[in-house]
Amino acid sequence: MYFKQEKIKYEGSKSLNPFAFKYYNAEELVLGKPMKEHLKFSMAYWHTISAQGTDMFGEATMQRHWDQGVEGIERAKIRVKVAFEFMEKMGLEYFCFHDADIAPVGETIEETNANLDIIVDEIEKEMKRTGIKLLWGTANAFSNKRYVNGASTSPNADVFAYAAAQVKKAMEITKRLNGSGYVFWGGREGYETLLNTDMALEQDNLARFLKLAVDYAKEIDFKGQFYIEPKPKEPTKHQYDFDAATAVSFLRKYNLNKNFKLNLETNHATLATHTMQHEVRYAADNGMLGSIDANQGDLLLGWDTDQFPTDIYESTLIMYEVLRYGGLTTGGLNFDARVRRPSFKEEDLMLAHIAGMDTYAAGLRIAAKLWEDQVLEKNLASRYASYKTGIGKKIVDGQVGFKELDAYVKGKKELDKNEPGRQEVLESILNQYIIG
Amino acid sequence: MYFKQEKIKYEGSKSLNPFAFKYYNAEELVLGKPMKEHLKFSMAYWHTISAQGTDMFGEATMQRHWDQGVEGIERAKIRVKVAFEFMEKMGLEYFCFHDADIAPVGETIEETNANLDIIVDEIEKEMKRTGIKLLWGTANAFSNKRYVNGASTSPNADVFAYAAAQVKKAMEITKRLNGSGYVFWGGREGYETLLNTDMALEQDNLARFLKLAVDYAKEIDFKGQFYIEPKPKEPTKHQYDFDAATAVSFLRKYNLNKNFKLNLETNHATLATHTMQHEVRYAADNGMLGSIDANQGDLLLGWDTDQFPTDIYESTLIMYEVLRYGGLTTGGLNFDARVRRPSFKEEDLMLAHIAGMDTYAAGLRIAAKLWEDQVLEKNLASRYASYKTGIGKKIVDGQVGFKELDAYVKGKKELDKNEPGRQEVLESILNQYIIG
Amino acid sequence: MYFKQEKIKYEGSKSLNPFAFKYYNAEELVLGKPMKEHLKFSMAYWHTISAQGTDMFGEATMQRHWDQGVEGIERAKIRVKVAFEFMEKMGLEYFCFHDADIAPVGETIEETNANLDIIVDEIEKEMKRTGIKLLWGTANAFSNKRYVNGASTSPNADVFAYAAAQVKKAMEITKRLNGSGYVFWGGREGYETLLNTDMALEQDNLARFLKLAVDYAKEIDFKGQFYIEPKPKEPTKHQYDFDAATAVSFLRKYNLNKNFKLNLETNHATLATHTMQHEVRYAADNGMLGSIDANQGDLLLGWDTDQFPTDIYESTLIMYEVLRYGGLTTGGLNFDARVRRPSFKEEDLMLAHIAGMDTYAAGLRIAAKLWEDQVLEKNLASRYASYKTGIGKKIVDGQVGFKELDAYVKGKKELDKNEPGRQEVLESILNQYIIG
Amino acid sequence: MYFKQEKIKYEGSKSLNPFAFKYYNAEELVLGKPMKEHLKFSMAYWHTISAQGTDMFGEATMQRHWDQGVEGIERAKIRVKVAFEFMEKMGLEYFCFHDADIAPVGETIEETNANLDIIVDEIEKEMKRTGIKLLWGTANAFSNKRYVNGASTSPNADVFAYAAAQVKKAMEITKRLNGSGYVFWGGREGYETLLNTDMALEQDNLARFLKLAVDYAKEIDFKGQFYIEPKPKEPTKHQYDFDAATAVSFLRKYNLNKNFKLNLETNHATLATHTMQHEVRYAADNGMLGSIDANQGDLLLGWDTDQFPTDIYESTLIMYEVLRYGGLTTGGLNFDARVRRPSFKEEDLMLAHIAGMDTYAAGLRIAAKLWEDQVLEKNLASRYASYKTGIGKKIVDGQVGFKELDAYVKGKKELDKNEPGRQEVLESILNQYIIG
Repeated sequence: MYFKQEKIKYEGSKSLNPFAFKYYNAEELVLGKPMKEHLKFSMAYWHTISAQGTDMFGEATMQRHWDQGVEGIERAKIRVKVAFEFMEKMGLEYFCFHDADIAPVGETIEETNANLDIIVDEIEKEMKRTGIKLLWGTANAFSNKRYVNGASTSPNADVFAYAAAQVKKAMEITKRLNGSGYVFWGGREGYETLLNTDMALEQDNLARFLKLAVDYAKEIDFKGQFYIEPKPKEPTKHQYDFDAATAVSFLRKYNLNKNFKLNLETNHATLATHTMQHEVRYAADNGMLGSIDANQGDLLLGWDTDQFPTDIYESTLIMYEVLRYGGLTTGGLNFDARVRRPSFKEEDLMLAHIAGMDTYAAGLRIAAKLWEDQVLEKNLASRYASYKTGIGKKIVDGQVGFKELDAYVKGKKELDKNEPGRQEVLESILNQYIIG
Repeated sequence: MYFKQEKIKYEGSKSLNPFAFKYYNAEELVLGKPMKEHLKFSMAYWHTISAQGTDMFGEATMQRHWDQGVEGIERAKIRVKVAFEFMEKMGLEYFCFHDADIAPVGETIEETNANLDIIVDEIEKEMKRTGIKLLWGTANAFSNKRYVNGASTSPNADVFAYAAAQVKKAMEITKRLNGSGYVFWGGREGYETLLNTDMALEQDNLARFLKLAVDYAKEIDFKGQFYIEPKPKEPTKHQYDFDAATAVSFLRKYNLNKNFKLNLETNHATLATHTMQHEVRYAADNGMLGSIDANQGDLLLGWDTDQFPTDIYESTLIMYEVLRYGGLTTGGLNFDARVRRPSFKEEDLMLAHIAGMDTYAAGLRIAAKLWEDQVLEKNLASRYASYKTGIGKKIVDGQVGFKELDAYVKGKKELDKNEPGRQEVLESILNQYIIG
Repeated sequence: MYFKQEKIKYEGSKSLNPFAFKYYNAEELVLGKPMKEHLKFSMAYWHTISAQGTDMFGEATMQRHWDQGVEGIERAKIRVKVAFEFMEKMGLEYFCFHDADIAPVGETIEETNANLDIIVDEIEKEMKRTGIKLLWGTANAFSNKRYVNGASTSPNADVFAYAAAQVKKAMEITKRLNGSGYVFWGGREGYETLLNTDMALEQDNLARFLKLAVDYAKEIDFKGQFYIEPKPKEPTKHQYDFDAATAVSFLRKYNLNKNFKLNLETNHATLATHTMQHEVRYAADNGMLGSIDANQGDLLLGWDTDQFPTDIYESTLIMYEVLRYGGLTTGGLNFDARVRRPSFKEEDLMLAHIAGMDTYAAGLRIAAKLWEDQVLEKNLASRYASYKTGIGKKIVDGQVGFKELDAYVKGKKELDKNEPGRQEVLESILNQYIIG
Repeated sequence: MYFKQEKIKYEGSKSLNPFAFKYYNAEELVLGKPMKEHLKFSMAYWHTISAQGTDMFGEATMQRHWDQGVEGIERAKIRVKVAFEFMEKMGLEYFCFHDADIAPVGETIEETNANLDIIVDEIEKEMKRTGIKLLWGTANAFSNKRYVNGASTSPNADVFAYAAAQVKKAMEITKRLNGSGYVFWGGREGYETLLNTDMALEQDNLARFLKLAVDYAKEIDFKGQFYIEPKPKEPTKHQYDFDAATAVSFLRKYNLNKNFKLNLETNHATLATHTMQHEVRYAADNGMLGSIDANQGDLLLGWDTDQFPTDIYESTLIMYEVLRYGGLTTGGLNFDARVRRPSFKEEDLMLAHIAGMDTYAAGLRIAAKLWEDQVLEKNLASRYASYKTGIGKKIVDGQVGFKELDAYVKGKKELDKNEPGRQEVLESILNQYIIG
């Protein structure tokens, strides 16, 4: 047993016990479905198990007694135990990982793959034992110095090849562990300066790479959903999957849009100067809403802080969009969030996940009420009613052109009056739903 | 005669005469073509002729003796004279305008259109007299209070119809004046809050509107190029044509990408946190580089300052991308720039245009040298050489899949070494080209 | 009667009546004091009475039947009636104004002052009739084109003189109306470019101006509190009162810090990339917390949106800081907020103020509970306990120098362990207080 | 010999040799003083000698053959040789370091100090051999996990004590090496969240710490200049020395302003949304311009990129301010800049420093011409002339109050006219000076 705390329980909103859920009650029905099915929380292996609390100006701060005195594959094995104990105690039914999170990277790919096989055995056992599932897998093709100039967009073809070999293995592992998805986040797929970049070739190569991945999935009969995870910048000055729209544009250009959905992250949305609600709506409207990396950024800072989500406005609006979309299917809510560097104790991992899970549970409850009451939807229906009849219907049905519209305008004594947008009122109503 | 200055002449880089060009020498050959054909400068009617120097916290400051004592259509007529005298004296061979810039907006569309017809007669005469051409026309579908909730994306179908009637007329005028393009900038096509917005319907309606415009162009045999002008925000909180990639994604979704190119603006690029070079490259790589709104923003401010371009780095890199693309065809360099509010004298209009024209002329000269010497291109060729032979060529030619790449990696003793990016060196070389 | 609604009443958090308060209950005691005394809400004459809904890209949208068919001083008189009816109906007991908001600006200062006298008579009557008070007055020394290059920081000494004459009158009016404060917001006190700016002289002149104001206050026995209102930028590229720290630095340099406090605005704080909580804390810690402009910005936009405050996190943390400080004395909560441009109906003025008042009332309730329970304060006491005894106490008491501290460190087997920061837990607790 | 290149020479602006200066000619006289005395370039030990090319998403990339096969104190000794060979070959006559850059940090402070003594011996020898000088020293009180919650602002008094002991040693070393300054950069002196922060106590403690440093300097007769280095954020969410104005405000509050000057960094300025020119001017106007960290940021990114300076506009305007101030005295131009992560070869260190040195040399040449011609100064003199006579002089001399100014305004027929700001013209002139 690595954590001294027992399994975290739901104690309700008045609880003063820091090691209890105040809002997340896994089996409680919301809109006829248990909360845990709406929310499908996932642990991010990299932040919760591997990360040590370094930042650009400071060394590791995290205190992890289980890491002491062990190295390499032995440490990796222990971490598997830690991870599953943690997920069990937190009631997290899913996890996500990069290849490099779970097993030591070797000198050669053969060695790395051998390490992976050993650890995947361990993970598989734990998955069977606990029933915990893999939300998605991925390959870390950005940390190794090999990828300094990009992976599939490297100017060095050998690096493209290496990334292919690495993703091949990561896909195989993901399939073996029955992952419901596989993510591509291109941390180095972009450029530092256009002065030295053939963007056209690089983007073509990125598309080639993704096509090879699609081909290989067929070859090995991997049926998981592929996702692109947009991020505008950091570590790279400009990343090709800047935001949802840019990723969709890219996928459409290369006819890959049927094969991919989006894995959207809150902090990436705001780095691109979008609200996360916008990104989710955009993906949903384009049929490409896949999965969510549930974290939050600091809008007054310009980098990816990956904080645990605690903003109820954000969780409410995100869950509202998810409900409106009919729920995520293959996707879930992955805590791509790291405990703050000064939250260095083991118990802080639990406390931070409680914060995140409660925030989304509260958001779900509020969003469900908003949805049940159809407050926003009724307002929309009435606001856009003019497109249901008359000239509006003709516009939507394609029955009028500029000439007819010109004649319509000229023939009218007075145009229909505009109605106010009511932003302040809608924000007030949202507050009533939030604070009760 | 409205300006007391004579026609502005080229006097070379040592001139101390503020009313002379130091770098812009219209007929001088650069890469075998006169500068003026590379640059195709255009005056923005709204900023240079109509704008009064108001801002959100202050009243008009601009001193324009020609506006004194005249109103309405009479003032509009005088302004046509002012505009053409100004362009003649500046050597500006193109202009751009919104309908609302040139003629008073009436109570009804009939009245507005009648005003437009009167002024278009005047403009036509001046165009014949001077040989000055229309780079593109457009309709102002954002200033009138009718458009408070959007134009083609308004929840009010009557407003969609009104915008259609307005654009119809603006297209007719543009055709009559032989404009080589027509721009859609959706200043209100977006949302203030998603709480009250049916984004899917609004974007569908925007696409419907653009299709009707395409249809009507065929109907009246207007052969000018259609452009979308992206801008991320301002006045609207979120605009649908956020940046080049978003606009392209939209056009692809609705199969409009064959009918449109992009009109890119420097300050809009930076508001979207892109360099302008990026936006130009993106459009070029996607075959959609159309025209350029030449201005500059202040990267430490968060709104559209529309300054006259004076940054040589930017003008050099933009012109470099244009040269690399083979030049603009229907497009040009439109000074969508306003004199600073404290530059309120008539002569400041001239001084500011001189600043902008010289900046682009200097940028062109430097870019042309860079292009002639092929410094950057040679570096690219060598940097990406690995895709010309061996495994790289096979990747590009689609002859290898993940399996083959995996075998390739495993079979190699050592991967090809990465080469450094040389960013500091390339920036130094750029400096040598700039300061000589 | 200009508004068809009756006086707005408190109906509690379940009310569906848009024209009712859900959280603001003026006489309800919070920490032993009526809510209205904690909150001292003020109407901003400029936004609520004068503003017309223009923006940089659009004309007026606001529908105000009382403005129709009247002009000049007559309109100004009617607006006084409108303002006081509005405040009465809203239960707003304070207001703020610029000279230019209340009366037409004349051709000469004599004419302007005469207009002011007429309107101040009207305002005085209404104040007597209703008991409504003036929170603070100010002069608009930024809108007129005279101030294009600054007011007290203009390079033109005549403009300095004019601003002095204008502020003199505004101070006299404020005194006459028994205003409890007077604000200096330097919208044009800054620069557009350092290339043309003598910053040292300009800042000296700004200080000279403020000293003259202090002198004149003594001369006329005006006892109201002077405030500086920091803002980093907009309309000016750089404003001298960038943020609280910059304003305090300036006041200290010129020995004005005893004569001024700060009027802090939420949206100005975030434009300076600070949280408003930070600005309030900074002012409080430096003994200069004066008054608050209660609005909110959009952190994804780069300009002053002056939205009505609806974010409960912000209102809670601001009110928490105010409670911690012991309350505002001369200051209050002025709604320096404008209805969104699409909220153009008269009733939207009411709805927006309800939104703002409820947001602060809810924030106050939550902050009061946090304060009563001393959750945050107890955590602070324990977190910093090491400065109450031992070496920490010696540090605070100035009893040790580097040598002693060096000896202390060298003599210890092991340093005291650091404790985690508990950010996620504190944010969760805040959520419990907010959503209950 | 660690670098295969010879000493870098000046070859002039036409040179195609990447390993040559194009603009920096150390002994060339500019305004009667050798360039090297104007510029006093300094190598930053941390970036150039210690840094390995890690970022938040990637491992080390830097290839440094001298680090291979040696560890600990032996590696540290070799690095001293590398550093001085590098400086000699580059013609860098100064360097700066943190304690932790030069020697391995031990288990105890005694061990660390012993390591420092060994390496300082080596450094001292090399300094004697080469004549290279120490611009300033400092202590790294932010990387060690001990400082996770701050150093002098830690809630843990033992950490305050430890920082004191560390700074004591760093000051002693700096004195021994005859450093002309000592810098305080408070990377962790700030907060992550105000929810857990007693800002008043923390700032008092920071001031106490600085006072102890001042006391200790007297005690050991260290006569070097103390500097505060402002930075708004990163790594900490909010740093107390946000910008020049904030640091000055702090120093004034605690009466430390006579003991400190500012060490300003370009990238820190822009992170605070100021131009570097503004920060330099502000410090100069307040008599606190000390030294400069010469690097550059990417204004489209939100973190400290610490790029080598290559922007001629920035270097020109910074050097212009320095010339205007009469030059730096104790300070210099320290390259707090790191080679880009893809510039991983040893020779890239040289190439990047050449880029930076040439950029500042070119900037100096241009600034000197601007200063000699007094273009900007003449414009200022004429722009502010109204304060030299008449009412303006009376204002400056304190001879008039609001009453007299009011009478002056009322007595005048017409105010003096405002003159335009001429921003576009001044920017054009700057371009002429830059591109010649």
